[in-house]
Amino acid sequence: MKISGTAYRTLWPLESGAVRVIDQSRLPFEFRTLDLRSLEDAAQAIRTMVVRGAPLIGATAAYGLALALREEASDQRVEEASRILTATRPTAVNLAWALARVRSRIASLPPGERARAAFEEAGRICEDDVEQCRSIGTHGMALIGTLAERLRRPVNILTHCNAGWLACVDWGTALAPIYRAHDAGIAVHVWVDETRPRNQGAFLTAFELGAHGVPHTVIVDNLGGHLMQHGRVDMVIVGSDRTTAGGDVCNKVGTYLKALAARDNGVPFYAALPVSTIDWSLEDGRRIDIEERSAEEVTHMSGRTVTGVLERVRIVPEGSPALNLAFDVTPGRLVTGLITERGVCPASRAGLRQLYPERA
Amino acid sequence: MKISGTAYRTLWPLESGAVRVIDQSRLPFEFRTLDLRSLEDAAQAIRTMVVRGAPLIGATAAYGLALALREEASDQRVEEASRILTATRPTAVNLAWALARVRSRIASLPPGERARAAFEEAGRICEDDVEQCRSIGTHGMALIGTLAERLRRPVNILTHCNAGWLACVDWGTALAPIYRAHDAGIAVHVWVDETRPRNQGAFLTAFELGAHGVPHTVIVDNLGGHLMQHGRVDMVIVGSDRTTAGGDVCNKVGTYLKALAARDNGVPFYAALPVSTIDWSLEDGRRIDIEERSAEEVTHMSGRTVTGVLERVRIVPEGSPALNLAFDVTPGRLVTGLITERGVCPASRAGLRQLYPERA
Repeated sequence: MKISGTAYRTLWPLESGAVRVIDQSRLPFEFRTLDLRSLEDAAQAIRTMVVRGAPLIGATAAYGLALALREEASDQRVEEASRILTATRPTAVNLAWALARVRSRIASLPPGERARAAFEEAGRICEDDVEQCRSIGTHGMALIGTLAERLRRPVNILTHCNAGWLACVDWGTALAPIYRAHDAGIAVHVWVDETRPRNQGAFLTAFELGAHGVPHTVIVDNLGGHLMQHGRVDMVIVGSDRTTAGGDVCNKVGTYLKALAARDNGVPFYAALPVSTIDWSLEDGRRIDIEERSAEEVTHMSGRTVTGVLERVRIVPEGSPALNLAFDVTPGRLVTGLITERGVCPASRAGLRQLYPERA
Repeated sequence: MKISGTAYRTLWPLESGAVRVIDQSRLPFEFRTLDLRSLEDAAQAIRTMVVRGAPLIGATAAYGLALALREEASDQRVEEASRILTATRPTAVNLAWALARVRSRIASLPPGERARAAFEEAGRICEDDVEQCRSIGTHGMALIGTLAERLRRPVNILTHCNAGWLACVDWGTALAPIYRAHDAGIAVHVWVDETRPRNQGAFLTAFELGAHGVPHTVIVDNLGGHLMQHGRVDMVIVGSDRTTAGGDVCNKVGTYLKALAARDNGVPFYAALPVSTIDWSLEDGRRIDIEERSAEEVTHMSGRTVTGVLERVRIVPEGSPALNLAFDVTPGRLVTGLITERGVCPASRAGLRQLYPERA
């Protein structure tokens, strides 16, 4: 996607053999890139959330392994590098998946050919991610296009958190349909939930959309229900961190509240996701373990002062405890449809079976 | 209620003729009071939310009118001062109600007697508010007590925004039942919605509850739905800025989302309010004019830095617009009951008629 007219991905290999990434840890306040030249550079970038978002973490880890093998490519080094990378964000499944994919590609090669093959495989992981996101965009754009034809005015789409290109290599999941529609000349306007406590909506989604030129408005997480009551939201599209085989959607905390409001007001509610987020082993989303994160994400907030300094401030009285659970689960009954790289289906076992008959 | 062992109200008249208020705009980080000496002082205090909360706004407006009449008490001045005060916060019905009450008291008096009568009436408005809040507390405590007997563990109560004593003259509306229950030895624990964008939950409700020793936990507005799904909320009590004759509840934006989640999970949802917030002229809450406030309340956040300085930081990218609507309307169908100074009734015309037969 574009930043001030220039097309970017979130990471890309350089001629020099280094891998350049957008440093997301200071967005939206500062845009800068960082060159990863070693295993440790890649591990550090993941650990400090210079890169974040499950697909992007996976792609970065794949390149991190390739960077490690450039210096030494013994079995022992592969093992050691994988261990270091896995430890950076132990809960991200894409990370382990991407490392396994690279290791499987190089396992039978002699050490001298491993680094180059690993770089190639990391590149393919990126291309596959881009292609999946583009397909999600194609299927979602059709839904937006149908609404646009009926409404004959800009389509108002609400999204929660950041499931945009910054979380992936390009396009994004929830935002891919929006970019595709915008680029195709369909007028869209996005309501961006700020998404407390980490503000990924206000920090990243607003930045992405603004940089690409997509009309949008930032709102507090509390406002979406009112907007839906007054006909100011035509559809909701969110991402998904984990989707059960029964169609329940585990996504950033607060998603469930928007799904309830959408249902109460007849607003279509979609989750956009690649097949890799579907947990075929789990039917009932209520059984998903929800990550509890530091209370400081609730009690403190970072932003830029009027003098341009990044500053962290306390926003809860000393002595008041806080609870910080990162996700919630939206039951499939509240989800109008799942948008995947294969198409759109009902959020149910039967619906997923239509798109993925091989998993039935 | 008490702060650091000292009993306070949110405003009180001084011997000098000025009116002293707690400056709530810097809570919980700084506690200080401010003296209102003129109409403009009072209007400014309401406008800038030095005082906030429907009952307190009404009381402050009543004193503001009295302050205006001290200098000049012609019919024209009464009219002009009322207009200025009414314009400060258009949604709160208490403001207009309190002004009407003072005006009705002084209308037939000669100008020379008006200021003193207005001060007396403002004082009575305050006393009535305290008494009403205490009664709301009594009726609400009975609901909590019933739950406590059934559950045989602390009752988990979720509240949104601040409808505590800081929003009133004393006791509060939504928090009055909680204070009464806590003081009566009923174990309660309060989930405090931080209540973006102005954080009245994190800033004021957490401060109040902490100062009084009531167990509580601050959460982002996004979390309540998940907590209800998992049986961690036994009841919701919110305040109301305006309640229609049909039982619709206009309250801080985001209230509607919690009501939806409560309904979806079988959690009782109550609004606590004095009769003065009931708008007998309006049946359908969808017709309520919702106050639009400055986008800066969304794009910026204030808090205390690690060095103890109050600092304001930008939390939305430059160039991204924001929309800031302060309230939403929860339809009566989602409200289990209204807790008023006269008792608890269904949130409907019939329900309100039971408690207020004289308005039928």
